[in-house]
Amino acid sequence: MSKPLILVSNDDGITAPGIAVLTKAMTTIGEVIVVAPDSPQSGMGHAITIGKPLRLIPTDIFQELGVQAYKCSGTPADCVKLAKHHVLKDRVPDLVVSGVNHGSNLAISVLYSGTMSAAIEGAIEGYPSIGYSLADFSHDADFDHTIEHIQHIARQVLEKGIGKGVALNVNFPPKQNENIKGIKICRQAKAHWQEEFDQRKDPYGRPYFWLAGNFVNNDKGNDTDVWAVDNNYVSVVPCQYDMTAHHNIAQINDDWDI
Amino acid sequence: MSKPLILVSNDDGITAPGIAVLTKAMTTIGEVIVVAPDSPQSGMGHAITIGKPLRLIPTDIFQELGVQAYKCSGTPADCVKLAKHHVLKDRVPDLVVSGVNHGSNLAISVLYSGTMSAAIEGAIEGYPSIGYSLADFSHDADFDHTIEHIQHIARQVLEKGIGKGVALNVNFPPKQNENIKGIKICRQAKAHWQEEFDQRKDPYGRPYFWLAGNFVNNDKGNDTDVWAVDNNYVSVVPCQYDMTAHHNIAQINDDWDI
Repeated sequence: MSKPLILVSNDDGITAPGIAVLTKAMTTIGEVIVVAPDSPQSGMGHAITIGKPLRLIPTDIFQELGVQAYKCSGTPADCVKLAKHHVLKDRVPDLVVSGVNHGSNLAISVLYSGTMSAAIEGAIEGYPSIGYSLADFSHDADFDHTIEHIQHIARQVLEKGIGKGVALNVNFPPKQNENIKGIKICRQAKAHWQEEFDQRKDPYGRPYFWLAGNFVNNDKGNDTDVWAVDNNYVSVVPCQYDMTAHHNIAQINDDWDI
Repeated sequence: MSKPLILVSNDDGITAPGIAVLTKAMTTIGEVIVVAPDSPQSGMGHAITIGKPLRLIPTDIFQELGVQAYKCSGTPADCVKLAKHHVLKDRVPDLVVSGVNHGSNLAISVLYSGTMSAAIEGAIEGYPSIGYSLADFSHDADFDHTIEHIQHIARQVLEKGIGKGVALNVNFPPKQNENIKGIKICRQAKAHWQEEFDQRKDPYGRPYFWLAGNFVNNDKGNDTDVWAVDNNYVSVVPCQYDMTAHHNIAQINDDWDI
């Protein structure tokens, strides 16, 4: 069997430490091609670039690993689209991986996450896709303990597949004294960001606002991604891009005058 | 009963024709406050602004309607967050509406849509929320035929409610010779964008790419949003922000070695 073809992207930008970890981890599994943003794209959600053109420029950043790489001026979703049409062309990737994000993408954060948008874009294109995130925002976050799990999950997806129209949202706990306890397949926790805006004045006396906030989890279930990561497990949430609340269709038909 | 408080936003920017139609339509139903982007934000998905500060500036654009309005330098999701914390403050909106988008947001487009991100952000905050889009991209698109349906759907939501964690994605057919046939509660069609990139050279000989593409629907169901709009109905899709593919959890647990 020929080596699987693996497309790597992220949202922290092509020079971020997490994509170097992920790219290196994937070289032991298959042929790797990287197409990633040329600048940080955190919080970009599933944004695409439609009002201006995109650049796609080869870079030798992963030359030592023997990996072809391109930096793109667009969003993570743009990267996957451009990779399909202008890098891979007639070749079909066996796997799309995104990350490793420097910070968690748990619960509702999946919606805001550029990391997951690359994975979901992969799923939309019909490719098995995984987004990886490390629940550690500290500047010197250690990614080493994630590597064996990154590879194990990628191999499971390559061997066993995942459902059509599904991308995996994988989150790792921060490095701790004890080893990671294992992998939990989870649901997205009903947790949210309790936001506040820090209001300041610029040198001209005009107000501006910084988004800030705390992550609040009122979901006590032990089958959630937040529970898993809090308890030193790797969380894996299968995510779908069909956003229809199917159970509400009949209810609205019953309730409304239409 | 006091007048309902309605927050209006959009993604085409505060000067777009669709938000003027929506704002005016809402003034017959309740007290209206507008917080919308100061520039077009189409395709922004659920992006939020985390790497730079935001501006929020009062504008008299809807003064003739007696409507307080603010323009925001951020994304549609930012607008709803800033509206909550710095415009409405202790007041809780009875309804959040977004649009009317100049162009459709059918099927998978819900993921890329800035219009729907404002509505989904409203739902995350716990407010009944609706995104409205007109399936007409032409420059001189006529919004008049949408007004009575905009108001009817808003009144239904105010009277009957919608499920918790659900936002409505409403799409109108373009104006035609015959009247709209009615409203259909639908599921998101399994349709997608068949993309291509138009590759060009800049004056310095360097390549750049424009995203282009066609919308392709292989979903033959007559219960989809695409079917409804194609057949001159208003489509209403209840959308949830829990992206968990619940049916895949057991399957992965069975299949994988973990």
